[in-house]
Amino acid sequence: MATKIKYIAYVATSIDGIIAKSSKSGVDWTSTEDWNFFQKALIKMDAVVVGYNTYKVAEARLKARNTIVLTSKVGTIKVKGKVVFINPSKVNLKNFLQGKAYKKVAILGGSKVYDFCLRNKMLDELFVTIEPYVFGNGVPMFSSNKFKKYSLSLDSVKKLNKKGTILLKYKYANQTA
Amino acid sequence: MATKIKYIAYVATSIDGIIAKSSKSGVDWTSTEDWNFFQKALIKMDAVVVGYNTYKVAEARLKARNTIVLTSKVGTIKVKGKVVFINPSKVNLKNFLQGKAYKKVAILGGSKVYDFCLRNKMLDELFVTIEPYVFGNGVPMFSSNKFKKYSLSLDSVKKLNKKGTILLKYKYANQTA
Repeated sequence: MATKIKYIAYVATSIDGIIAKSSKSGVDWTSTEDWNFFQKALIKMDAVVVGYNTYKVAEARLKARNTIVLTSKVGTIKVKGKVVFINPSKVNLKNFLQGKAYKKVAILGGSKVYDFCLRNKMLDELFVTIEPYVFGNGVPMFSSNKFKKYSLSLDSVKKLNKKGTILLKYKYANQTA
Repeated sequence: MATKIKYIAYVATSIDGIIAKSSKSGVDWTSTEDWNFFQKALIKMDAVVVGYNTYKVAEARLKARNTIVLTSKVGTIKVKGKVVFINPSKVNLKNFLQGKAYKKVAILGGSKVYDFCLRNKMLDELFVTIEPYVFGNGVPMFSSNKFKKYSLSLDSVKKLNKKGTILLKYKYANQTA
C-alpha cells in the first residue's frame, strides 16, 4: 500500500484575509522573513501544487520544481519538463500524486486551489503568514461558493520579525485516506 | 481643546478573514474566551459604533449602551434613548463624537463600518480574534471598493484557549488629529 501523502498549504495574507490585489498580480508585500521561511520549507517538499495564474506569476522558479498546475486549459494531462498541467475535473489528482510516490506536497495557491484542496481533503497542515497590513479589497484566501465551517487546530504561533509578521501553523484533523 | 478620542476596533474572524456568513447573520461561532475578553474590554468604552445590520443583530444589548448606528436610513441624526442613528454622509461623525466628550470609542463592525473608520482615521487600535476555522465564503473583514495598503504594527499576540483561538492587537500609526 502506498504511503499517505502529507499535504501542506502555505498562505501569505493581510490581516483581513486578502492574498493578492488581483488573481494575476504577484506578491510584492510579504516580508523577507516570510520568504526565507517559505524557501526553507519548500526544500523538504517533493512537489508543489498551484493554479494557472500562480504558475504564470512564478513560472521561472516553479519550472525548476516538480510542479503540478491545476488548470481547465488542458484536456487531461500535459507534461512540460518538470511541470505537469492537470485538469482536476478530468483527472483524479490524488491518485496521480499517489502514483508518483510523493511524500510531501506543498499547496501554494491561489485561492481556488486552496479551496479545491480543502474540499478534497488535501490539506493536512496550513501555514498562514499574516503580514501587518489591511488591504480592504482583493483576492480572498479561499474562494468557495458557499459558507462552510472547517475546524482546524492551532499548532504554533511564531513572530517572524519586529514589525509584527506572524506565522501560524494549523492542523486539519478531519482527514481520511 | 477637546481631547482626541481613541478609536478601538474589535473584530472576530475566521482564519480566512470572514466575519459572518451574511451581513444579517449573527455570530454563533466565536469562543467563550473571546466573548469574555470582548465584554471586559467594552466596560472601559464610552460609546460603540456599529452599522445598521450589526445593530439589528445585537439590538437588545446595544440599547443599554451609548450606541452610534451608522445608517443611510436617517436624514441626518435620530436619537432613540441611548442609541443615536447617524447618516455619516450627511453628518461629520468625528465632530459629533468629539462634541460628546467621549474618550474611548469602540468600533464593532460590520465590514462597511470597519472600512469607513479605517478610511476616516478612526482606528487607532485593532483587536483581531482569530477563531480556528476556515469558512471559504461570507462577509470579509473590511469591504472596501479598492485595494489599498494600510500598514499597522503588531503590539501583542495572545492565545485565548486550548483549541487555538488567538487574539492579535495591532496599532495603526497613520493617525492625524
